Amino acid sequence: MANTFLAVDWGTTNRRVYRIENGRVTRTERDGRGVTAVTDFAAEVEGIRAAFGDLPMLLAGMVGANIGWRPAPYVAAPAGVGDLARSLLRIDDRTAIVPGVSTLAGGRPDVMRGEEVQLLGAVAAGLAPPDALLVQPGTHCKWARMEGGRLTGFTTAMTGELFALLRSHSLLAPQLSGAVGVTAAFLAGVEEARRRDLAASLFGIRAARMLGTRDDADAAAYASGLLIGSDVTARLADSPPDTVHILSGPELGDLYVAAIHANGHAASLIDSHAAFLAGIIAIESHCP
Amino acid sequence: MANTFLAVDWGTTNRRVYRIENGRVTRTERDGRGVTAVTDFAAEVEGIRAAFGDLPMLLAGMVGANIGWRPAPYVAAPAGVGDLARSLLRIDDRTAIVPGVSTLAGGRPDVMRGEEVQLLGAVAAGLAPPDALLVQPGTHCKWARMEGGRLTGFTTAMTGELFALLRSHSLLAPQLSGAVGVTAAFLAGVEEARRRDLAASLFGIRAARMLGTRDDADAAAYASGLLIGSDVTARLADSPPDTVHILSGPELGDLYVAAIHANGHAASLIDSHAAFLAGIIAIESHCP
Repeated sequence: MANTFLAVDWGTTNRRVYRIENGRVTRTERDGRGVTAVTDFAAEVEGIRAAFGDLPMLLAGMVGANIGWRPAPYVAAPAGVGDLARSLLRIDDRTAIVPGVSTLAGGRPDVMRGEEVQLLGAVAAGLAPPDALLVQPGTHCKWARMEGGRLTGFTTAMTGELFALLRSHSLLAPQLSGAVGVTAAFLAGVEEARRRDLAASLFGIRAARMLGTRDDADAAAYASGLLIGSDVTARLADSPPDTVHILSGPELGDLYVAAIHANGHAASLIDSHAAFLAGIIAIESHCP
Repeated sequence: MANTFLAVDWGTTNRRVYRIENGRVTRTERDGRGVTAVTDFAAEVEGIRAAFGDLPMLLAGMVGANIGWRPAPYVAAPAGVGDLARSLLRIDDRTAIVPGVSTLAGGRPDVMRGEEVQLLGAVAAGLAPPDALLVQPGTHCKWARMEGGRLTGFTTAMTGELFALLRSHSLLAPQLSGAVGVTAAFLAGVEEARRRDLAASLFGIRAARMLGTRDDADAAAYASGLLIGSDVTARLADSPPDTVHILSGPELGDLYVAAIHANGHAASLIDSHAAFLAGIIAIESHCP
């Protein structure tokens, strides 16, 4: 629609602002003004325009949640770029929030807010094919099925949050201070996860300490393998061999690559930053 | 061995002392002097003898852990009453600690300490048949297979601890303050657990709030059903119909009964207090 606009990827704890001119980023800045740090969103937006230019603005992410500026709707999957563009929450005639996406597939409700821009952008930019399985690892890991370039279904797993809970607050916490990487212990956890019996496999970490069968220095990597492996196995156990496209930085991305390989599938890492940009540009260009 | 002795069920936070004469309890008392509240165990034992009689004493539970008085060994399963009696940790000629039990079956290490007395006692007292599957719900839920009256294998699941973690520290915590009982929401959680995809099913609790598909008043019961159901499904999914004998008070016991029924198996509640007594008397009678 506009040749030049501002895009804000506005999450819970961080925010990134882009000035985009004819499809290219001419200025970007990241700060800690996530939605939990902000009360007066109108003033924030005014400040962004003062710094980046008095331009139309498209906001995405938790800014549209009930803890954000105003609750933007969820568009029901299947959803493409055009569906999101048609359902923007308009704050005023130059400011809008991208909607989230919801699904009730198979009787399990699921929602996303912010991830949809990256997912659709990955396909729009040609970083993933129009029919593909994508994953965004993290606190709440999103697995998304794309068909014909549209988001047709997805599943969120609390993988990262469970790991953080165990590491900070559980009986296992004193054992889980070690490093996590693609090690033999990590892969042993991925293998154990194939039992699909997480609560019992986790107790095995404690029992291994009691019986001296694993060094505690390896316990965090094993626990990470167990959680990521549970996520990967649940998603891929019944699927024919496929390539999973991972939207992630290398640290977490490499763990998912290893777990996906161990489950007999291929994996490829995608630049999630580039995917977001392609997504927000595609949505903006579809705005009525 | 002795016609009259003292037995102590000495856990992490509580302790129960029994004076047993010719197989009958003539005096018992419960207090909060669990192992974490005690530093001088010798003085505690002296105090118990001063109050209950200057008698031989058999201690069971966490008193034999590394956070207790002295680490008692683990006897490898299969283990019967006689195996435990032969492996007592003798503190002096009138005071001994019952060993724990360990297993490495199927490559997953597991341990118990204290539960073995109840399990073997349930069979010794005729509360469960000599060949049976028993379960002790709780923070760390124990599932034990008895064959010919001996403990041949077992699995521990962190079911109760995961529920407590989610209720206290997770993103779901604000939703999980409601009551838990055998309700439609509990049974819906048990059904969802059959997917064996716990981390994703848990996120469904948050999504249900976002989409308004479940009242938050029901979320705790649903989460409980999900966790208990995961435990039950993992243990029983591949088993022929059987009766599960539950060592538990009625509150938690009824939840397990309902989840076991929903998975197509029968369940019966056993008095865990009576099972402990029968177990400790049987072990004492086998002491060399």
